[in-house]
Parts: sequence; structure tokens; C-alpha cells
Amino acid sequence: MNRRDLLKTTAALPAVLAMSPAAHAGSAKQLRGTGDLGIVIERATGSILIVETTGRTILGRITGLGDLSHASAVYARDERYVFVFGRDGGLTKIDILEQKIVKRIIQGGNAIGGAISDDGQLVAVSNYKPGGVRIFDTETLAMVADIPADGSKTVGLVDAPGRKFIFTLYDAGEIWIADMSGGNDPKLSKFTDIGELPYDGLITGDGRHYITGLFGQDGLVHLDMWQEPLTPKLVLENYGRGEKKLPVYKMPHLEGWALAGGKFLLPAVGRHEVLALDAESFKETGRVKVYGQPIFVMARPDGRHAWVNFALPHNDTIQVLDTVNLKVIHEFKPGPAVLHMEFTPRGHEVWLSVRDANRIDIYDTASFKKLAELPAQSPSGIFFTARAHQVGL
Amino acid sequence: MNRRDLLKTTAALPAVLAMSPAAHAGSAKQLRGTGDLGIVIERATGSILIVETTGRTILGRITGLGDLSHASAVYARDERYVFVFGRDGGLTKIDILEQKIVKRIIQGGNAIGGAISDDGQLVAVSNYKPGGVRIFDTETLAMVADIPADGSKTVGLVDAPGRKFIFTLYDAGEIWIADMSGGNDPKLSKFTDIGELPYDGLITGDGRHYITGLFGQDGLVHLDMWQEPLTPKLVLENYGRGEKKLPVYKMPHLEGWALAGGKFLLPAVGRHEVLALDAESFKETGRVKVYGQPIFVMARPDGRHAWVNFALPHNDTIQVLDTVNLKVIHEFKPGPAVLHMEFTPRGHEVWLSVRDANRIDIYDTASFKKLAELPAQSPSGIFFTARAHQVGL
Repeated sequence: MNRRDLLKTTAALPAVLAMSPAAHAGSAKQLRGTGDLGIVIERATGSILIVETTGRTILGRITGLGDLSHASAVYARDERYVFVFGRDGGLTKIDILEQKIVKRIIQGGNAIGGAISDDGQLVAVSNYKPGGVRIFDTETLAMVADIPADGSKTVGLVDAPGRKFIFTLYDAGEIWIADMSGGNDPKLSKFTDIGELPYDGLITGDGRHYITGLFGQDGLVHLDMWQEPLTPKLVLENYGRGEKKLPVYKMPHLEGWALAGGKFLLPAVGRHEVLALDAESFKETGRVKVYGQPIFVMARPDGRHAWVNFALPHNDTIQVLDTVNLKVIHEFKPGPAVLHMEFTPRGHEVWLSVRDANRIDIYDTASFKKLAELPAQSPSGIFFTARAHQVGL
Repeated sequence: MNRRDLLKTTAALPAVLAMSPAAHAGSAKQLRGTGDLGIVIERATGSILIVETTGRTILGRITGLGDLSHASAVYARDERYVFVFGRDGGLTKIDILEQKIVKRIIQGGNAIGGAISDDGQLVAVSNYKPGGVRIFDTETLAMVADIPADGSKTVGLVDAPGRKFIFTLYDAGEIWIADMSGGNDPKLSKFTDIGELPYDGLITGDGRHYITGLFGQDGLVHLDMWQEPLTPKLVLENYGRGEKKLPVYKMPHLEGWALAGGKFLLPAVGRHEVLALDAESFKETGRVKVYGQPIFVMARPDGRHAWVNFALPHNDTIQVLDTVNLKVIHEFKPGPAVLHMEFTPRGHEVWLSVRDANRIDIYDTASFKKLAELPAQSPSGIFFTARAHQVGL
């Protein structure tokens, strides 16, 4: 989310906290499975909703989480605890069954996301201030490692198999790997001069491809974690704003890449296009004209369709692409400011944050019928527990 | 598992039931997440163990599940309930938090596995006797559809996106799709004359490729669910016993195919080889010489390695393959009769059933160190709750 979104959001605060969490208290402490649970970030009010996707209901609300603009979350491997990363450096561990905050620390001054190790023992946070990455014990939130990264802001922090974290230094233009397999003492690998102002990163679900987007130049940086020796490479050298310096209403999120049927689909920067890349060669193989500047291009979990949302002034609309023939097969307008989409784990339904309508909408992904609406205060990110089981999420 | 395994197993019953489930009763009904849980089939004694993978412990045992030779299981989408398919036609719904049987029915005379719909509402069972497929409501186990399939034995039953089930008719040599998207009245699509005596099937994790193995002739049948019109095709026409009619100690399980880095790895029939196929063209691209006749070739969830077990007389051994260069990088002998392997969801550890040692062994998949041993009575299949979130599992 960019600064404009933030300003707009914080300026529009209805009396959200008047909606009593006590109304849901009966559902707490109930013996239940956690595979169908999730949270919704209410960015403006520093709160989250706890939701369940089987009956499509809200189970409760937890408040007091600080600045949740651009907040994200990762799940413990038991799918009971969620770690929420706030913009204000807050790291909050929440028990979604008990519906309470287990522990909350302010681990830095300005943070931008985090990751959890494959064994579930370590949670890492990426900091703008003071820069670097800090790693905490998931049980206690005690800090086990501090990686200052020469004071550089860090972005694109992800987990990788083998108790590793990968992240990118925005100011320095470097990619670092912190290998924690030996315990809590990071073994660092550093790749320098990767490109100008890397602003975000992603790792594919198999933990193989780490991709960093560049703000200061065209192109993307690709690090194939299966290659030896590890060598970051500039790929897709026309990816970016180009010579014309197109107006960009919002830099696309790299985590919103779809991988389907042997190709990546990704948002073009500043253009009303989705690009298709060959997933092996990283060469462009096609383009789809879409309704606006795409922000997220999200593959339905089976990869057959990809759902696309857009930057202002087109952010009331969703388009659905057929990933085989690259055609737009469906378009609809859920409402003002569709910020995020989360599919149920096997993809039969999708939840959308319609921020300025203060609403979550739930759709059937086969028939495209709307199934339910849930009230939420300026909802942004939606995170379901199935992420616990996936690399990079 | 084949008939010989069955005989061998049922002939060797120690006093397993003397191990009291009450010893674990304290752990039942405890508020806890379900993302790190699983079950282990104890085939000879008709019981299952409930396990958790974070602390690597056994939480309890449930008995009275009938004939569990060749048993399998699928999870409800909340990861609280598991449906166990017994060989005797038993369909048992178990609450793994309460550690009790919720309901048990005998739905047929001789069954061979099942599947759960992507929305979690339907559980389907594949029957040898009376043949066909029966579909039940996951809440009540009431039968909602009976698909006799002209009395043919059915095999290779899987779920597919869009509330569909796909299965193969052994006697008739057909593939059928039951589309349940319209409610509980199956809309059937039938593909006839696909090949001689199909004996097993699988669907890839994206729900795209349904593959059936043939016992009566060489080759495999491939149905691309993304293609229109749907057309099953014979592929890999040399896959099978060949002209020499090699002795086959056990037909390989098709569900034990690995998909990694754009290729499938699969057990050769009757040969000490693992085959590599291009995942797009289904053409063979390489072979790896291995220690015995492979049964399962299981990709670690990130796809970087594949673990292989073998038929008698080599079933005491595991080999680990590098999926990029197709070399054996590790070999060890866990013990007598390694029947099954299950990776933790993000692949950092693997659990092995060492049946004839009455033991589950747990290994670190990066260092290959043994981390723990757990007692189990003639363990076979291991099923972790993360399967709830995956197509075809």
C-alpha cells in the first residue's frame, strides 16, 4: 500500500471500536480445528478480525495492534498462532483460538513485513528503521539474532527451505541470505551490486526462485536457489517504467505473481497489461490487455484462473484471466477500493477486501456468484491459516 | 499394498491393544491448533495413532476401525476431522481433537480409498464390492449419491476443483468424472476404451493432470483437465512390464509420483529405475538407476529432493535423489519394511513407517540425521493434516 492509501485510510475512521469484541466472546476458547481460520487486517483501526471460511463468519476482533498500514502476517506451523507485522515496528503474537494477544513487542521503528522459518521456530522482521533484519524466537519473541545490514532498509524478506531467510537491501542494492540451520547464529551470504533500488521481493512456492523488483532501473533480479554457485541475474530487462517514464499509480506487489501452467503472470509497471513469462527462461511470452494498472495478479490455487485488481482510479474492479489462453473471461465491480484477495486453500471461494465499503465480499470462484458479505473496518490484507504450510507465505 | 503384504502383516500381531489409549487421555479435549497434527495407520490392528509433528509425539490411539490394510485417509477442511477408508468398506469419521470416532459406517463390501470435495462437503469412496463410487455428506455420513459404474471395481478416485470427483473403472477400462457442482445429483462424463485394466490413478496438485496406470498393457493414460474437449490419451507407451514380462514384486503406487522442476519422477515397473518425464509433453527425458524396484518416489514439498522406497527384498532402504541432476545423493537403511513416507508440510522433516520394526522414524531432510523414533504397531500410511488444503490428497 502506498502513502496516499495510508492517508486516505487514516482520514476515514468510523466508530469501529464501538463494535464490541464481547459480542463474539462466546466463540473463544472453543475446541475447534484451525485449518479453516484466518485474519483480516483492519488497517485504519489497528485491529484484526478472526474469521472462519467454512460457515463464512467473523469469530471475533482483536484491537490494540498499532499501525497496521501495510501490515502482513505469518502463521505458526500449528495454525493456532499468528504473527502480525505492523508498520510501526510492532510484532504481535496472537492466539486465534483464545482470541487474545499472547505477546506484543516494538522490535524496530518502522517495519515492512516478516517471515517464519520452515521449522516454525524463528520469526524474522524486515525493518526500514533502524534497517536490517531481526530474528525472534516464535515461542517467546526473545530476539535471537540482529542483522543490521549496514543500516540499509530491507525489503522482500522471505523464508526458504533449510531454516533460511532471504532479503534485499533497498539502499545498498544487495541480496542477503541468512542461513540459520546451525542454530541462532546467522551464516550470511551477500550478493552485491544487484541493481538500483530493489523495492520488493518474492519467492516461488517451491523455494526455488527469489525475485526482486527494481525501482531505480528497468528489469528484475532473479536468484535461482537451486543453482550452484548462487548468482543473481538481471532478467526481463524491459520490465519497468521504460524510457517514457510512465506515470505509476502504485508499484505492483511482487507477491502478487501467479505461477500457472509453466508460466508466470505478473503486473506490468505503469501499463494496463499483465505480462506472461516462461517460468524456466524468464522470457516474456505474451501480454494481456487489462482494465487498469494491475496491482495483484493472483493465481487461484489450482492455477486455472488468475484474479487481477488495479490501482486508482480503477480499483473498484476485478478481472479474471484464463491462464491457458490469456483471455479475460470475467469482469465485475465489487466496490470501492478492492485492496486484497485471498483464496480458500483449495480455491473454491475467494475473499475480497472492499476497503471503502467497509466490507469483505466472498465469491464462488467457479460461478463467480457472490456468496456472502461481512462487515469490516477499512479491511486490507486477508490471511488464511493454510499459509502456515507454504514456503514464502 | 499388495496381497502378500497383507498376509504377512496380519500374521504378525503383537499385543498392541494392551497399550492403553487411556495413557494419552489427558491430551484430548485440549484447546490446540490442528495444523501440526496427523494420523498413522496401524494396519494390522485396525487402529490409528494421532500424532503431532512440532514436538514429535503421539497424542493418542483410536481402535476399532476394522480392516486397515491399504487404508487411506482425507481431512476435513478445518483439519479437525479425518475420514478413514478401510479395506472392509468401513468409512470412519474421527475427531482428532476429541480423539474419538464421531461416526462409522460400512458403506460397501471392499473399498480402496476415497476423496473429499474441494468445498469439504462431500466424501467419496471407491469400491471393489459392490463396485462403483458412493458419495456421503461429510457432516452426517448420510449417502447423497450412489454411482454403481455398471458393477465395475473403481480405482484412482480423486477430487478435482469445482466439486468434482474423477475415478477409473478397472474392469471396464473407463474414466468417469462426477461433477457435483449442481448439488448432490452427479453429472457424469464417461470416457470409454481408455486401456486394459487400469489399476490406479493420481491427479497433480494443480488438479490439471489425471493419470491412470495400466496393468493389462504398457503405457499410461493421461487426461488433461484443462483441455477442451477432454480427451484421455495413451502416453509413455513403453511404461510397463515390456515384452520380456519382468517380474514385478509390487505395482508402484501412482500417488508416489514426484513433480519437481518441470519434470515428473516416477517408479519404473519391474525395473530398478526411476523415470524422468517432461511435465508438459509426458515424454521420457531420463532414467536413474536405483537400489531396487521403486514403490514411492516422493518429492520433498519444495521439490529439490525426491525420496524413494522399494519393493521386497529391498524394502529396508531409502534413497534420496537430487531432482535437478538426477543423481542419488544419499542412501540409508531405516529398517525392515519401510512402507510409507510423509513430509512435514514445508518439508523440513520426514516421517517413515518402518513396519516390521513397529516404529515411526523421523528424519531431518537437510542433514539426513535421525531426530526421533516413535513406537507404532505395524505402521503403514502416515497422513498429516496439511493434506486438507491440497487438491488430490
